[in-house]
Amino acid sequence: MAELPELARTLITRELHAQGLFAHMGCEILEVEAGRVTLAMDFRKEVAQQHGFFHGGSVGFLIDNATAAAAGTTLREGQSLLTAEYKVNFVAPALGARLLCRAEVVKAGSTITVVEARCFVVKDGAEKLCAIGLASMAVIAARTLAS
Amino acid sequence: MAELPELARTLITRELHAQGLFAHMGCEILEVEAGRVTLAMDFRKEVAQQHGFFHGGSVGFLIDNATAAAAGTTLREGQSLLTAEYKVNFVAPALGARLLCRAEVVKAGSTITVVEARCFVVKDGAEKLCAIGLASMAVIAARTLAS
Amino acid sequence: MAELPELARTLITRELHAQGLFAHMGCEILEVEAGRVTLAMDFRKEVAQQHGFFHGGSVGFLIDNATAAAAGTTLREGQSLLTAEYKVNFVAPALGARLLCRAEVVKAGSTITVVEARCFVVKDGAEKLCAIGLASMAVIAARTLAS
Amino acid sequence: MAELPELARTLITRELHAQGLFAHMGCEILEVEAGRVTLAMDFRKEVAQQHGFFHGGSVGFLIDNATAAAAGTTLREGQSLLTAEYKVNFVAPALGARLLCRAEVVKAGSTITVVEARCFVVKDGAEKLCAIGLASMAVIAARTLAS
Repeated sequence: MAELPELARTLITRELHAQGLFAHMGCEILEVEAGRVTLAMDFRKEVAQQHGFFHGGSVGFLIDNATAAAAGTTLREGQSLLTAEYKVNFVAPALGARLLCRAEVVKAGSTITVVEARCFVVKDGAEKLCAIGLASMAVIAARTLAS
Repeated sequence: MAELPELARTLITRELHAQGLFAHMGCEILEVEAGRVTLAMDFRKEVAQQHGFFHGGSVGFLIDNATAAAAGTTLREGQSLLTAEYKVNFVAPALGARLLCRAEVVKAGSTITVVEARCFVVKDGAEKLCAIGLASMAVIAARTLAS
Repeated sequence: MAELPELARTLITRELHAQGLFAHMGCEILEVEAGRVTLAMDFRKEVAQQHGFFHGGSVGFLIDNATAAAAGTTLREGQSLLTAEYKVNFVAPALGARLLCRAEVVKAGSTITVVEARCFVVKDGAEKLCAIGLASMAVIAARTLAS
Repeated sequence: MAELPELARTLITRELHAQGLFAHMGCEILEVEAGRVTLAMDFRKEVAQQHGFFHGGSVGFLIDNATAAAAGTTLREGQSLLTAEYKVNFVAPALGARLLCRAEVVKAGSTITVVEARCFVVKDGAEKLCAIGLASMAVIAARTLAS
């Protein structure tokens, strides 16, 4: 894909930081490129389930956010997005010091944009795939959101 | 379904309260019955996205937790669960004072248990459907989790 | 929901019968009402997998078709539909003489319509739930499809 | 992944050919390797919807079959598979002379195996992505299926 204009990166970064849940989960932005966003969060008990793993809801949060942001990088003037749905398949326990989610646009459509995501848990410096996500967003007129 | 033994209700309630994320999200348990669990959370900026709605990740968290807990009510002695996957379809903006998730077991299998969930946002006292979820859990031997 | 105008029922029925795969699978229309469509097919080896059950693809076909048709009953003048995605969870082997799929609209939106479906296999006269589906369709301008 | 033993390839090929629906849809096997299966089918009106595209159910059939076969390549002695669920996101109209589905195992687990798939429509010799799939299979003891 083409390079992402700096303005788009700034807007997407600002949108993410404007989410109360973003700070509450300790979420960080690692990368915002054309069609691709990487988010991360450190392990703390506040984002864990009862066995000391990252909670499935924490994994889902990263996927929801990273896929929407990745879709956001493909918007044109006057367009906005609504997340229609997302799916998470867990493939390994999310046990580690850090959780990464790499989202990549599969198809930026005029009606629907589809994004896939892979979540990795970082343990002793090594990344291990722990979940895979698939999400779709409805592309709508920007004013629709404002109305 | 048959009535849920008090011990099972106690164990499931304890498991949920043992999650760091449960308290962090301000999650509450409204109902734990055989094949059916209802969870809720109040609106706060900490669980919101940038437009003042409940974050999609908050909706996903409730669905993940409520469906797993509902599946947990159907376990037999010596069985445990691993969430295999879940899916969320958003059907309306989650704008309101409170978010409810009602999860109900569709099929408690010997290998896979399937649970569906409906999320409602409560605004001015009225419930409005905002998301629908579908989740599946692998039924495993309890010792597998401990090992 | 309100009653379905006879014209809408006629159009949807015609659309289904215009599909080559509809006849090829031996599909039948049992019900087309406002927000609700039921389709069925008889068991034959042509729609089976290797163990004598209905093939998962046959189940998916019924879900895809029944959910799209159910969404179609909610369209207004000048609107058309594109299936964005569907998901199937199998809950029991589809072993029987007949397969039914009951699809029901969860939310008819202006951008996305969400439909759920339940598939039942009929054996010795009794219906048994064998799969559950969840689908979403993008609501588009009718001319978009024609162009 | 390691090379696939010839016996495994033979068994998987035989299983696919034993499906009535496989022949009925005109399905072909292009590749069976360790963790990877490619299936295809030619366009005919029998597998089409009403606008001359491959039917969504045809796409779902290929995904269901290719993902299950790919998971099958990772089985060990005494194991068998049950498809738990699959999801399809459509990203472009499936308009062309041929439909391909490439399935690849994301994670071969001891309990659940997760497989992703990409479907391409071939038109004028060029492949175009038309759908993306994500599926999971429960890994069970082989005798479970026989019982």
